Amino acid sequence: MSENKIGKYPFVVEPFHTDFAGKLSLGVLGNHLLNCAGFHAADRGFGMAHINENNYTWVLSRLAIDLQEMPSQYDKFDIETWVENVYRLFTDRNFCVKDTEGNVLGYARSVWAMIDLNTRKPADLLELHGGTIVDYIVADKECPIDKPGRIKVSAPVPARTISTYYSDIDVNGHVNSIKYIEHILDLFTLDYLTKKRIARFEMAYVAESYFGDTLSFFVDTLAEDDYAIEVRKNIGGENPEGEVVCRSRVKFCNK
Amino acid sequence: MSENKIGKYPFVVEPFHTDFAGKLSLGVLGNHLLNCAGFHAADRGFGMAHINENNYTWVLSRLAIDLQEMPSQYDKFDIETWVENVYRLFTDRNFCVKDTEGNVLGYARSVWAMIDLNTRKPADLLELHGGTIVDYIVADKECPIDKPGRIKVSAPVPARTISTYYSDIDVNGHVNSIKYIEHILDLFTLDYLTKKRIARFEMAYVAESYFGDTLSFFVDTLAEDDYAIEVRKNIGGENPEGEVVCRSRVKFCNK
Repeated sequence: MSENKIGKYPFVVEPFHTDFAGKLSLGVLGNHLLNCAGFHAADRGFGMAHINENNYTWVLSRLAIDLQEMPSQYDKFDIETWVENVYRLFTDRNFCVKDTEGNVLGYARSVWAMIDLNTRKPADLLELHGGTIVDYIVADKECPIDKPGRIKVSAPVPARTISTYYSDIDVNGHVNSIKYIEHILDLFTLDYLTKKRIARFEMAYVAESYFGDTLSFFVDTLAEDDYAIEVRKNIGGENPEGEVVCRSRVKFCNK
Repeated sequence: MSENKIGKYPFVVEPFHTDFAGKLSLGVLGNHLLNCAGFHAADRGFGMAHINENNYTWVLSRLAIDLQEMPSQYDKFDIETWVENVYRLFTDRNFCVKDTEGNVLGYARSVWAMIDLNTRKPADLLELHGGTIVDYIVADKECPIDKPGRIKVSAPVPARTISTYYSDIDVNGHVNSIKYIEHILDLFTLDYLTKKRIARFEMAYVAESYFGDTLSFFVDTLAEDDYAIEVRKNIGGENPEGEVVCRSRVKFCNK
């Protein structure tokens, strides 16, 4: 029964989707995960196009990706996705990344809310479509990675401050969720990234940022190869602390 | 006969591949074009994987894209590609972007050289594989747009100077060809891009840049909505003029 509720989507690692090491970029993997979420939801009547018509939109709240290995240029791989839980205001969607032989390359967890575009308030997921979303829950499929945790950052000085531009902005006028991932990885030197690979990447999306906003990246080193990052917008003037946009935690390991 | 020599590849506009206006980003379209070039060449024994084995690599020298319209989010579209000409040191590859009804959305032209990785010198295309590349020439398919022209920029002050980071770098250690397109479009304000769309975009790739290089963008306004851009790396110190990395010309028109 559960098999029917699990979406499976094939991908290939395109040349311009790899990093300098010839491995799929994390941002591109994130993009693929979110696309799979979209395909899977759309096939079940909960897609963006459909819910937008009804003045709702899905909002990504948390994302955690655990990786044993990143596929290499021209590799084929599959992404499976399924709904693990539905609560009143949130739903948990999981992912499994597999090579074409079925070996697991990694897992991911995501947490989503649905926002009423008129009131900007979260919608009650258990009431939408007569609560049919719960029919898609897959209770017996394992996702053996930690849930997204709480991230706290106390660094007093930003490691980098950047402006936001045209190519950062999505169709909703926001800096797109994937661009934050790219900007966060860009904090690390190529020398460091030559020796390490990403073992786990977490994002907590807190508020939107917009074209022309200034983004400051604060970084705490929690342990060796373990970093917490807070992104704040528009620090200065009347708002010396700025406003938190998102927080991330990145754990690396030796290659 | 020619029909067999023309590659045709289907695409869909993914949500994270659109800009703020909900249209396919030019950088993503460029990525798709280059992928189609790769698929098409690979199917004919001239793909990257194959020629890399033999210590050659394709290098993109020129790209020109003329657009009537960009597809919108979730639109399906096709890209056709074919070889128009093969010279000793260069080959011309053209593209046509069509919607699913066959209406032309745009055309593109590209010019490629093949480099011997040992000597770093261009290879003689007419000698490779016994000159079989000429068998793929399609002489009777129209590409009714101007060839890439000569671009000259004289602005004395850069409009922007940026550093290069992890997410700019491709598997060869170079800033990837698509990232230049994004950085160039990021020179324009969202206000301007709200009123205009890209009618034609040209790139001339001159030299590679690398992780840690500083890129300065010089912009000449040639006429209303018509801009020439020169990207130079590492200006300053012993190299006050820097070194030209690429040049671009962007023509906009009213939406």
